Amino acid sequence: MVTLYGELENMLYEINEKALKLESEGKKIIRLNLGDPDMDTPPEIVEAAYASMKAGKTKYSSSYGEKKLREKIAEVHGVKAENVVITPGSKFAVFATMFLTLKNGGNVIIPTPYWTAYDLIAKSVGAKTKLLRTEMEDDWEINIDQLEKLVDENTKMIILNNPNNPTSKAMDTETLEYIVELADRKKITILSDEVYAAISFNKTKSILDYDSEHKHIVSNGFSKTFTMTGWRIGYLIGNKMFIDNITKLNQITFNNVPVFIQDAALKGLELHQKIASAIKAKYKERADMATTKLSAAGFKFTKPDAPFYVFPKLDDLDSERFTLDLLDKGVAVAPGTSFGDYREHFRISLTAPNDQIEVGLDKICEAAT
Amino acid sequence: MVTLYGELENMLYEINEKALKLESEGKKIIRLNLGDPDMDTPPEIVEAAYASMKAGKTKYSSSYGEKKLREKIAEVHGVKAENVVITPGSKFAVFATMFLTLKNGGNVIIPTPYWTAYDLIAKSVGAKTKLLRTEMEDDWEINIDQLEKLVDENTKMIILNNPNNPTSKAMDTETLEYIVELADRKKITILSDEVYAAISFNKTKSILDYDSEHKHIVSNGFSKTFTMTGWRIGYLIGNKMFIDNITKLNQITFNNVPVFIQDAALKGLELHQKIASAIKAKYKERADMATTKLSAAGFKFTKPDAPFYVFPKLDDLDSERFTLDLLDKGVAVAPGTSFGDYREHFRISLTAPNDQIEVGLDKICEAAT
Repeated sequence: MVTLYGELENMLYEINEKALKLESEGKKIIRLNLGDPDMDTPPEIVEAAYASMKAGKTKYSSSYGEKKLREKIAEVHGVKAENVVITPGSKFAVFATMFLTLKNGGNVIIPTPYWTAYDLIAKSVGAKTKLLRTEMEDDWEINIDQLEKLVDENTKMIILNNPNNPTSKAMDTETLEYIVELADRKKITILSDEVYAAISFNKTKSILDYDSEHKHIVSNGFSKTFTMTGWRIGYLIGNKMFIDNITKLNQITFNNVPVFIQDAALKGLELHQKIASAIKAKYKERADMATTKLSAAGFKFTKPDAPFYVFPKLDDLDSERFTLDLLDKGVAVAPGTSFGDYREHFRISLTAPNDQIEVGLDKICEAAT
Repeated sequence: MVTLYGELENMLYEINEKALKLESEGKKIIRLNLGDPDMDTPPEIVEAAYASMKAGKTKYSSSYGEKKLREKIAEVHGVKAENVVITPGSKFAVFATMFLTLKNGGNVIIPTPYWTAYDLIAKSVGAKTKLLRTEMEDDWEINIDQLEKLVDENTKMIILNNPNNPTSKAMDTETLEYIVELADRKKITILSDEVYAAISFNKTKSILDYDSEHKHIVSNGFSKTFTMTGWRIGYLIGNKMFIDNITKLNQITFNNVPVFIQDAALKGLELHQKIASAIKAKYKERADMATTKLSAAGFKFTKPDAPFYVFPKLDDLDSERFTLDLLDKGVAVAPGTSFGDYREHFRISLTAPNDQIEVGLDKICEAAT
């Protein structure tokens, strides 16, 4: 009756379901497996949502998103409001972009290690994926010759995730510049997921810095910058025709992100400086603790440019077995195989309270010896 | 670069954008064009959302939806929680169902007049639509011989909308029973959109009354019953395999409806009796006013079985012209052509304050003479 979705299985979700099950059985699990911050959404944002609900902002609204929010986002990114559309999370932004761009076939190039959803979404809309491997030993940099060789006449899209999940590595600006040049030359759309950019430890370059004509697309969201993961609000930046088309897709899917949630996100942007710097400082401290402990235990990894993730390697590690064993010891992480063919790696999310992260890191180091 | 979505144009949206534009220019428009109630969301529901946010329910959560909400919905419909999945609105529920069921091709039979979104969604996922005309003169009843003739080996789905938008007509139980028998015999999935059922003036039959094995699918939502249009929460009922597949699609699209919105919807269900009867009484009053005025002015229509819509006919009416002229006079309605080939009909939404509806109806009657 219904198409089976076997291809959407991934151990990232399996580990999470197991962790939830163990917790429901009363076991204490230190959850370092998802990019879901331990902190609460700032109270100013909660109050803004409540005020908006009480003011009756509970009706259908524009599928573009609210004018004020689009204007504020446009201001932040130096674009026009007509180049912005609001979506229920940046994941939906990626889905909508692929649904429109790849529905008539073609392939999409995805550098690995990657966020699992890119591959799953591309396959769900019937596109082929071509994986472009990067290595820790090369500082996770994309090899531009390999990329050019991978492009063929059916290549419709290149995904960039800058800074990257799971490596927390920001792209080298020369590489970024070259990829834009290649994409323009071959008429390929770049979808640049920049959801970790606003809280990266140092300012990173956006695809927008090389794309004044909006040939390419940026996806972004409020989850990470404003600790709003469960609010489900993100956005796309692109040319007007693309934004209009996404809006028509919005009209036949979710219609609009609740206006009170858009008002809450607007409050977040207004308090951006204050909120983002507090979050950055907190994660810098955690990243420093993690790198110190992991180095001492003999793990190899690149120094994170952005919050949340470390993606360490241990020679000859079977990361799926390691991850399952570690879960039995009360620590949930994600195996490297959830992000491509990275059997010797695993991903730690530094999204638990500091004392839990410390215990978790100690157990990880212990389990690896 | 991106697939054009020309096929998604519809005058329903055009009228709405024009009405919004006229309002922004300071003109007063009586808006009887959308099914968006004038009443506020009940305050108990708003307070439940706020309490949930304050309790930190602002994180990622299960793509199935919250256990308590699924259990409560299951109880309401006499099914198991494993047969229920939560979506951001019933429109997304329809999109997700069609995306999974029709992605490998096939056609879907849609009785007309229909809610525009069915046709647009089916086309967006690449399916063919076969329209099955019903007539006011037949009490909008589906002709079962015509339906059987329309079915071919590529028919994957039949859409039912019971009670119907735009006619507010509930299906005859014998017809419903026959359609289920036909669908079972031909192995076709019925998607039954029952979003107006809980507030219909008399109890209507659900597809669930004839489908103990969950061969078919029900979409439903909280928008109409609880005046929660802008909250974007709905659900699907189906067999476990279908629910599991929708959940996997949820994981790669919106992930989860915000938990505080699910908590608000749960509060709505707990107060169902109180809220739904107040809403029904209010709409019954409006429906009576509308039928009295429209009858006196010579319009033909069937008596509404459910709130919100009347779909009157006037011989030789050009409803698109009529609708545009009426908008100039300050009343927005939707032309019959937005719901299929119904040039002589138009749809009135009784979703404005009573005094506005009264003035609106008077202007409609005046314009028609």
